Amino acid sequence: MSTTIKVGIVGYGNLGRGVEKALKQNPDFELRAIFSRRNPDDVAAGNGVVHISEVEKYKGDIDVLILCGGSATDLPEQGPELAALFNTVDSFDTHANIPGYFDKVNAAALQGGNVSVISTGWDPGLFSLNRLLAESVLPEGKEYTFWGKGVSQGHSDAIRRVEGVKNGVQYTIPVESVVESVRKGEDPVLTTKDKHLRECYVVVEEGADKAKIEREIKEMPNYFADYVTTVNFISEEELKSNHSAMPHGGTVLRSGRTGENNTQIIEFGLKLDSNPEFTASVLVAYTRAVYKLSKDGQAGAKTVFDIPFGLLSPKSPEQLRKELL
Amino acid sequence: MSTTIKVGIVGYGNLGRGVEKALKQNPDFELRAIFSRRNPDDVAAGNGVVHISEVEKYKGDIDVLILCGGSATDLPEQGPELAALFNTVDSFDTHANIPGYFDKVNAAALQGGNVSVISTGWDPGLFSLNRLLAESVLPEGKEYTFWGKGVSQGHSDAIRRVEGVKNGVQYTIPVESVVESVRKGEDPVLTTKDKHLRECYVVVEEGADKAKIEREIKEMPNYFADYVTTVNFISEEELKSNHSAMPHGGTVLRSGRTGENNTQIIEFGLKLDSNPEFTASVLVAYTRAVYKLSKDGQAGAKTVFDIPFGLLSPKSPEQLRKELL
Repeated sequence: MSTTIKVGIVGYGNLGRGVEKALKQNPDFELRAIFSRRNPDDVAAGNGVVHISEVEKYKGDIDVLILCGGSATDLPEQGPELAALFNTVDSFDTHANIPGYFDKVNAAALQGGNVSVISTGWDPGLFSLNRLLAESVLPEGKEYTFWGKGVSQGHSDAIRRVEGVKNGVQYTIPVESVVESVRKGEDPVLTTKDKHLRECYVVVEEGADKAKIEREIKEMPNYFADYVTTVNFISEEELKSNHSAMPHGGTVLRSGRTGENNTQIIEFGLKLDSNPEFTASVLVAYTRAVYKLSKDGQAGAKTVFDIPFGLLSPKSPEQLRKELL
Repeated sequence: MSTTIKVGIVGYGNLGRGVEKALKQNPDFELRAIFSRRNPDDVAAGNGVVHISEVEKYKGDIDVLILCGGSATDLPEQGPELAALFNTVDSFDTHANIPGYFDKVNAAALQGGNVSVISTGWDPGLFSLNRLLAESVLPEGKEYTFWGKGVSQGHSDAIRRVEGVKNGVQYTIPVESVVESVRKGEDPVLTTKDKHLRECYVVVEEGADKAKIEREIKEMPNYFADYVTTVNFISEEELKSNHSAMPHGGTVLRSGRTGENNTQIIEFGLKLDSNPEFTASVLVAYTRAVYKLSKDGQAGAKTVFDIPFGLLSPKSPEQLRKELL
């Protein structure tokens, strides 16, 4: 590419920092500004952090804004607002609210003549793409999604709310024997709780009743009661040194049938040392697609289902056909 | 979809028969005719087999022709010829000749105002898509493709050319320890021969010298000499009953790095009971995309890199966002 794609990052948490790192691996991008709601002077590191109230001044200087806020409160507001002003890409991940979010961002993007790709990342995102591909190719079949091994923020929070608990981390772990059964085409009938184990690492306050805490965690409805749950008590130091990374991953499997009952298995899997850095890397690849679609004169909201993979690459169509097909 | 997609199959070998079966799993399609170069009366089974010389009469009655000929001699001729007359989809798989084939089909399709998707299937096809996706998301990394366990036609033919051999089948098998090393992010440096084993099942003529045959196979340059090769002598009956299926599959892995040396692994794998039936199923999904692109007024040759996954599904964009994102 002859010119660079000029981008801004909105939101400077784990995801925003991941995008900043990912951009350094992609020489066709140029980071123009990082926008934060906090006072720029309070934001550690980061060159060029600017208060979000200044964003409109960057119209014309930024090709795509990469939205790195959360799906609970940030994106439902920022997504439509910023789509009216800029091309945007985001990782809105509240599955049930995607259709409503799409409509709002679409209206704003159409009004502003911008392109907005919503809900990228890996789930929603790459996992969704694989669910769609696999069911389109193998219409007769069963789909299985396994998550983990990875930290579940919601379950970790639930542990930390138990009386006497100082800190805690919960890993969701797929049941390996069940994954193997699916890979063999045995088509087991499963609920989410048959597919996953829950492993807890807990730091307690001094003098706390560990037996009571373990019981309370294991019997907690919705979160743990229906699962095989293990509770490990560790020190604060051990938690910090061994359990502060953000690994995740998972597997999307489809077990299909063709012809005279031939089994056909399609599997897509991720094993990630850093969940936010990987999501950030997906966002950056889709930023390239937003840029190309916008240059092509398109407008409106799009999802990963609307984007040909060729647009994710800095290579030309000729080069891709020659090198990668 | 309110109307069905009317299709014709060109070529009635394993792949064409696979497409015929796949169409039965997809109620939005209607098979209008199967075209063969053989005398229609000689072609077993199949309703509506028509001689290929009649194909032009079907203009207007067929939305897309699904080309099921071979890449060596059939498609280089048929692809451009038929792209001038019909929308087409094919699985041209001679990797090195794809750019030249694309140009010829593209010129013909543009001239005829048709859409032609070339080189679908799984490699080229779904594997290519995953190579492209993974390198776009993780630009710093290494890519590994493993093939098998599956029958290699070329290597089976090579066995059958050895003096004293009556029949033979060769399986290409990935070295599991090497696959595991890649999955762990160890980034081994490998050539094709480090990645695969070759397992041969051989039927000999009466009185043949088995030791000599085994030596000749194992020492055959290019095909076997550089590989760990095992030779099993079996009876014709055993070959027929245990080794006449057409399983295949493989794995595309990318081991990437983000941020401060975090390892991120993307894996896509297939385990197929029937290679031709799976390729056929991919062809049918892409036939849907050809139809939609043509209805949209597009023309010219396309590859899997140009096709958004949403076009592969019979579901509407709204339904896809709601159910699968």
